[in-house]
This record gives sequence, C-alpha cells and structure tokens, in this order.
Amino acid sequence: MTYCVGMMLDCGLVMMSDTRTNAGVDNISMFRKMATWEEPGERVLTVLTAGNLATTQALISLLDERSKAPEDREPSIFAVPSMFQAAQLIANTLKSVISDHANEGQKADSGFNATVILAGQIKGAPPRLFMIYPQGNFIEASTDTPFFQIGETKYGKPILVRAYDPKMSFEEAIKLLLVSFDSTIKANLSVGLPLDVHTYATDSFKIGSQTRIEADNKYFQTISNGWGEALKTALDSLPNYSHDD
Amino acid sequence: MTYCVGMMLDCGLVMMSDTRTNAGVDNISMFRKMATWEEPGERVLTVLTAGNLATTQALISLLDERSKAPEDREPSIFAVPSMFQAAQLIANTLKSVISDHANEGQKADSGFNATVILAGQIKGAPPRLFMIYPQGNFIEASTDTPFFQIGETKYGKPILVRAYDPKMSFEEAIKLLLVSFDSTIKANLSVGLPLDVHTYATDSFKIGSQTRIEADNKYFQTISNGWGEALKTALDSLPNYSHDD
Repeated sequence: MTYCVGMMLDCGLVMMSDTRTNAGVDNISMFRKMATWEEPGERVLTVLTAGNLATTQALISLLDERSKAPEDREPSIFAVPSMFQAAQLIANTLKSVISDHANEGQKADSGFNATVILAGQIKGAPPRLFMIYPQGNFIEASTDTPFFQIGETKYGKPILVRAYDPKMSFEEAIKLLLVSFDSTIKANLSVGLPLDVHTYATDSFKIGSQTRIEADNKYFQTISNGWGEALKTALDSLPNYSHDD
Repeated sequence: MTYCVGMMLDCGLVMMSDTRTNAGVDNISMFRKMATWEEPGERVLTVLTAGNLATTQALISLLDERSKAPEDREPSIFAVPSMFQAAQLIANTLKSVISDHANEGQKADSGFNATVILAGQIKGAPPRLFMIYPQGNFIEASTDTPFFQIGETKYGKPILVRAYDPKMSFEEAIKLLLVSFDSTIKANLSVGLPLDVHTYATDSFKIGSQTRIEADNKYFQTISNGWGEALKTALDSLPNYSHDD
C-alpha cells in the first residue's frame, strides 16, 4: 500500500508521500514515490504515485527519458503548454504501461494498476492539481475538493476533512498532513516512514522546500506523541453524554 | 456497508451500531443491527451484525426461534453455560446460514458473508467480547485489543486507538463512539443515522441503557458540530512545522 496526499492552498501546493512498498507483509522495501520536474521560471510539476511499483517506476522512467532525449521531446513533460496536457500525457503513458503488462506475458496475482496525483504550475496559468486513474482518465481538484489522497486513504481522511483550511500556511499544512500520515502509519503496516514533502509557492516556478522526514525526526515525534494527548483534551472539551438528552 | 463497535470498559460493555443497509447507492434502507437476549439475573447477550442482510436476519431469527421453542432449546442462546459456548453456537449458526445460501440456488453478485460482534455476560464469569467470522471461527477481545469494529472500520479507528481508556465512564465512552461514528458517517454514505446504543454494567445481569440516537438528537449535533472546532483547537495546540527542525 501507500499513502500520498496532494493539497491546494491559497499560498500554493503541498505534496506528501510515504516510502513503503510491499509485496505481502514479509517483503517490504523503501522507494521514493514522489518525482519532480522543474524548468526554473517556467514550470514545476510533481507526481505522486500509488500502486504496482513496476508500473509507477516505468511511468516515471518513461516521463524522464522522454524529457532527456532531445529528438523525442514531443510530447514531453517539459514541452506541454498546460497542466491539462501534462495530465493527459501522464494519463496516456500510464494507460499504455499498464496495458503492455496486462495484455502480454504472464498473468499476475495482483493487477498492474497505479494511480497518480499530479500537482504543479506552468507559466500563464494558476497551480493545478489532478488525480489520474489507471484507465487513463483524470479529475481536477476544485475549491469543493481541494485535496486528493491515493493509496490507504481512509484512516487519514477525517482529520483532513475537518481541519483543512485553504488559508493555512505551509507550516500549518505540513503539521496537518503529518497528523493524517501518523494516523495512517499507526493503523496500516504497509504505510511507513520516511515521508517526502514538497511545498510549491504559487508563481515561484521553482522547486520549493523538499524534505525527507525520517523516523527520528524530532518534529514528527512531537506531533506523533502530542496528538494523542491533544485528541484527549479535545474530547474532554465536549460535553459528556447524558441519558436525559 | 455498516459500522458497529463493541467495547470493553472496566465498568462494563458498550455496543453501538448504525442502521443503514444498502444494495448499491440507489437502494438504501434502515434496519436494526443490534439484537439483545436477556434472562434477568442470569445473562445478557448482545449481537451486532455486519454483512449480507438476509444472512444476518436469518442468523438472528434462528437464534430467536431456537430460544422460543421449548422442545428445541438445546443448543439455545438461553441454555449455553458460557460466553465461549454462546460464541460457538452463533458461529456455527452463521456458518450454516452462509453455506446454505452459498452452495445452493443462484450465485449472487455479492457474497453472503457476515461478521458478528458478540458481547455479554453469563453468571459465573466476567463480561466477554467476541468477533465471529463468516468462516465460523472467532476471536476474543483482551486488554491489548479491548474493542472490535465491523463494517466500515477505517475512518473511525484512529480516534478510538488514541482516546480509548478502560477507565472511561459509559457517558465518556458514548461520546468517544459518537465521534468515531460521526467521522465514519461523514466519509461513507453507506453508514447512517440513527444509531443504536446499549450499555451493559458488569454483574448487573440485566439490559442496561438502550437508546436510539436519531439524526435530530441534540447531543449528537453538539458532538458533530463541536468536534470540528475541537480538532482545530487540538491541531493549533501543537507547534507548527519549521524547516529548521
């Protein structure tokens, strides 16, 4: 499993992903699930991936190689003129990777599916956030649904739904995401530290802060330990049930 | 879907269940998922059910009818001498209901599976809490895992894990459960109000408080509305992330 979140804020975009991959509980590994492409002053695109690791790595490699071979730069993630076309390019690449594996060779026990979050900005338009499905279609975030989750989404969703505020600073948003990730990590063995974080400030057109939060990170430990107490205090602040109500 | 929780406390047992059943999103109904058998001074048993409604209703009917026909009182939920044997009786009944449907007649799109929580006390032993699987086996709660959830368990789990305390009063436990149910109801359309609650006080050997919490219940609304604010306050009480950490 995996847990990744892409979130739109008034100040920009925040992306967070875990690094655990597994084939059964007896075969876990660590892989980066966040990839970023930057052309300073022009575009920054970040992709978060969940699903079959061979599929997601092939997807990132194909997107990368296309960007590296000058004679084959069309379509390229550095050449598409809009985020919508970037989403289309990624969606088509993803669909073809999956169908290559699904229709040829041996059948696998699990599917070759993968789901992708695309977040970024290309000059001339505001930052945009997409969720791309293995079928090759995609949806875009809006003010009604300003964040996307992929992978193990359920444990960490209630706190996002309740506490998300578009006016949050990056620092507040990272705190909120760490609570959401910590709840998920505590409940699902297949989501694990370290976590990758990328914040992109609107109209900066350069990679913002990119950090890896390791298990011994003091701030993460403060949040993880403090959240239990904070929740108990929150619960205490509400009136107790009474059978007379 | 469904959401039910059975919880052991120092003071007794708390059971809560929603009432929504659905076959697709265009066919929802309301059914009670909590059944209770009482022999005052002797035993109280409560069953919570999740899964195929025909299966769970057949299970409850079989357990009920067996208890009503005097000549067929062996095995009966009123005659078994221990909670362990009650769990065995329910597990065997559940398994036979499922296999009757699964092995004969038309194949259904969805399975006939169901999962059951059994909570209660029979004189001579302490209160006990079981989770019974459709395969006919079961597990028992312990101090390590003092509560069981069935149905849509994920959204409401983090708050239970963080805030559960065996020393809670019934009133505090109901508050905690309402927060857990509210988080689930907000996220999954197939879990819905009203909620049934039953509290059983250890060694009382009679049905405790049995209540139905409707959508217009003032206390539920206080919790549902207040929890968002309480969570934001809890999040504010933790230090913000800083890139220097």
